[in-house]
Amino acid sequence: MATRRYEFGRMDEASHPDSMRAALAEFVSTLVFVFVGEGSALALRQIYREPGLSAGELVVIALAHAFALFAAISASMHVSGGHVNPAVTFGALLGGRISLLRAIYYWLAQLLGSIVSALLLRLVTNNMRPQGFSVTIGVGAFHGLVLEIALTFGLMYTVYATAIDPKRSSANNAVAPLAIGFVVGANVLAGGPFDGACMNPARAFGPSLVGWRWDYHWIFWVGPLIGAALAALLYEYVMVPIEPPPHHQPLAAEDY
Amino acid sequence: MATRRYEFGRMDEASHPDSMRAALAEFVSTLVFVFVGEGSALALRQIYREPGLSAGELVVIALAHAFALFAAISASMHVSGGHVNPAVTFGALLGGRISLLRAIYYWLAQLLGSIVSALLLRLVTNNMRPQGFSVTIGVGAFHGLVLEIALTFGLMYTVYATAIDPKRSSANNAVAPLAIGFVVGANVLAGGPFDGACMNPARAFGPSLVGWRWDYHWIFWVGPLIGAALAALLYEYVMVPIEPPPHHQPLAAEDY
Amino acid sequence: MATRRYEFGRMDEASHPDSMRAALAEFVSTLVFVFVGEGSALALRQIYREPGLSAGELVVIALAHAFALFAAISASMHVSGGHVNPAVTFGALLGGRISLLRAIYYWLAQLLGSIVSALLLRLVTNNMRPQGFSVTIGVGAFHGLVLEIALTFGLMYTVYATAIDPKRSSANNAVAPLAIGFVVGANVLAGGPFDGACMNPARAFGPSLVGWRWDYHWIFWVGPLIGAALAALLYEYVMVPIEPPPHHQPLAAEDY
Amino acid sequence: MATRRYEFGRMDEASHPDSMRAALAEFVSTLVFVFVGEGSALALRQIYREPGLSAGELVVIALAHAFALFAAISASMHVSGGHVNPAVTFGALLGGRISLLRAIYYWLAQLLGSIVSALLLRLVTNNMRPQGFSVTIGVGAFHGLVLEIALTFGLMYTVYATAIDPKRSSANNAVAPLAIGFVVGANVLAGGPFDGACMNPARAFGPSLVGWRWDYHWIFWVGPLIGAALAALLYEYVMVPIEPPPHHQPLAAEDY
Repeated sequence: MATRRYEFGRMDEASHPDSMRAALAEFVSTLVFVFVGEGSALALRQIYREPGLSAGELVVIALAHAFALFAAISASMHVSGGHVNPAVTFGALLGGRISLLRAIYYWLAQLLGSIVSALLLRLVTNNMRPQGFSVTIGVGAFHGLVLEIALTFGLMYTVYATAIDPKRSSANNAVAPLAIGFVVGANVLAGGPFDGACMNPARAFGPSLVGWRWDYHWIFWVGPLIGAALAALLYEYVMVPIEPPPHHQPLAAEDY
Repeated sequence: MATRRYEFGRMDEASHPDSMRAALAEFVSTLVFVFVGEGSALALRQIYREPGLSAGELVVIALAHAFALFAAISASMHVSGGHVNPAVTFGALLGGRISLLRAIYYWLAQLLGSIVSALLLRLVTNNMRPQGFSVTIGVGAFHGLVLEIALTFGLMYTVYATAIDPKRSSANNAVAPLAIGFVVGANVLAGGPFDGACMNPARAFGPSLVGWRWDYHWIFWVGPLIGAALAALLYEYVMVPIEPPPHHQPLAAEDY
Repeated sequence: MATRRYEFGRMDEASHPDSMRAALAEFVSTLVFVFVGEGSALALRQIYREPGLSAGELVVIALAHAFALFAAISASMHVSGGHVNPAVTFGALLGGRISLLRAIYYWLAQLLGSIVSALLLRLVTNNMRPQGFSVTIGVGAFHGLVLEIALTFGLMYTVYATAIDPKRSSANNAVAPLAIGFVVGANVLAGGPFDGACMNPARAFGPSLVGWRWDYHWIFWVGPLIGAALAALLYEYVMVPIEPPPHHQPLAAEDY
Repeated sequence: MATRRYEFGRMDEASHPDSMRAALAEFVSTLVFVFVGEGSALALRQIYREPGLSAGELVVIALAHAFALFAAISASMHVSGGHVNPAVTFGALLGGRISLLRAIYYWLAQLLGSIVSALLLRLVTNNMRPQGFSVTIGVGAFHGLVLEIALTFGLMYTVYATAIDPKRSSANNAVAPLAIGFVVGANVLAGGPFDGACMNPARAFGPSLVGWRWDYHWIFWVGPLIGAALAALLYEYVMVPIEPPPHHQPLAAEDY
């Protein structure tokens, strides 16, 4: 993890192989994550007419997201930092942990990964229409928005505390992806029956586009971005006020 | 982890930024944990009329607590020790591992986190009344109390053996939060149908206050405190009789 | 892990505080494990009349055993090696990894932990009769026996490969208890509907004694002991033929 | 992990004890994995007439595969690299990470492990006929094939990024088997209701042979091999373009 800095990007970042490789890692990891996440919803629709209405289905959705996110982060953390989520990238940007240029690369890669994933799902399921996210009947847009803010706050705080905080040493390898995967799984168990517990605009965007469902779609952009911003600013400016001495900072990507 | 000591607090602890930051970490982690734990119970009520009566619902509750607690501990262990539970703080105090002043800070932060969490849940669920904990019909107060003592004994013994014992090296990063999260998940699977398997006064207090349900509430204070005390005293005075030589002790917060 | 040796015990082992402490760690960890394992079966009986007949109930039983065993091993591995199972202790004895005297201590501690656990369960559940293990209707004693041998072989092979093999370095901390806990959870999912998937005489003995159910009980001693013996001998004499050079061996208990 | 190289095999590899031991490790680990994976399907058939049609059954199958694969990889990674899957071995061969001779040993060991496992299951279940894999009614062979390619791509990409990439240090011990086990579990949750989500020819072959079911069997060879090849070539030639300096490479098998 770099120390805090605010900049547009390094001169050569736009064409640097490392930036390209990091964006590719974000693309593949988001593709895998969205394929499993949205795929598990379609799998339940393959079994039942009306998915998402029982405890067993909630467990399927939660475990699919937790397990796939753990794998997706583990597979990309040494290359790109393992964001797999535009809101997480936004938080890291606000905290000064990545440059704006790199953030833009990540966002494009994440959204593209999500779209390709949704198209692939449509192909392998013989044209089932992706579901994306919406709020449950009886839950208003305002409640859904506050819920997304709260859930993403918990996610981004966990990301910051386990993966970005320079006090976490390189031995934390398993802790960070596990904590992030598990907090998402837990949040799905708590928030799923209300608004799907998205916490990730890329998770919502591809399926919404390919399934052409836009009702309440803005909630799954605005909520996660606000929640991630609040957690990143809190952690960066209150919990990490002083950078640890240099020898505590991992020096190379493979160390954290 | 410091060596065993009994004191009220260091002169400057009350205003030291590290103490404030540790209390804040306990506040946020308890907020996230209670939000998911109580939220999963409300999520089941959103699906069913009568939650908690099937194996699938038991799995939802157990995984929500296990996953959220793992994330909450992982996110705070390097700052505050990752207690997220007044009974654990009480055990660490009895074992001489934290000062009384710090324990008081933690308790206030944990209870406040729980209350804010319950209020937030009431907001996002459009005013659903939090459930808190009680004993099942057919289970008496005495059985519930002994069960809470037994379950919290197992939890606190695991906390001491994996996170506090100075023999556990810094490489144990993933072991401690996983063991603690998983023992709580396992205990919910075994004790949930009898008394909810609380093991944590903060987990019970906020929802009870905001939902105004106080029947049997004392059980979820007295049981966890007794169970944690028994485990802490057993481990501290029988399993850790001699401090290991200094080079075995982690020297800085980020090492454990 | 010591190098391979066959001996009755060191002169002073019988009264050495480390042996006592290791036996106590086995006692507490087995108590916690059996309390959750048998407790989850009773929890299902509290919900249903006839537990164990659905996929959801199978998941409850499997996760309870996997999570509790992970915690129980994590909490004792640095003190006793984290056996929590007389069959594992038997395998370690046959492989020459512990002395006979220490094995006897462990066996007594494990069985005593199981009995106390079953008594405690009887108390907190208002006198529910523990179930222990048996074979399902339609499955004969011979099939149950071979199944226990096969399942325990997989368990003991995993224990040897992740926790005892001197080639596994101290960094393996999380791998060993996770692999052992997860293989037990997986085995319950595969073998549970046939014979309960015990793999552990201590897991069966306490509940059988307190519930006074002895039908087929011998299977859950003979099967695990044979399976563990086969795996230990295979691993010790084929997979670990040459001890690695001394600097690969952990020197102190806390290192592995 | 060795550096990239393409060769048939070292002179002495055919009779070298290390090659024999690695093949034996693959044999035992595949045996354990297939026993649990196929066993969990038979366990559901022991409970229900028609397994695989509910969310709870999907969770059973997914957790059985995830947990067993984690244990099987953990138990063999320090000896053989923990492939437990002919498609993974194929990917490692294409990437130049193992020799052709060693790949052939692994394939034979994996297939033999699967066959012995299926025979053993037939014995302990009193002659139940193993199921193997097929595509669900309403899903065509083409969709099943593309799905297997996509799912195995995700699996092999995770294997390469967490276990083979020389940038991952030895501290990654828990990350690699967890990421691989969890991505398989997640993929089962998403793909299970469509074609079983095999991703592993050895997982399909033994049960198909012993149960004599060959409809669509070719899909579970062709799909995984193509998917693994695509991921291995992408990762090897785009993500790992320059070998890190020597001191980043684990020097001995036990280090990674």
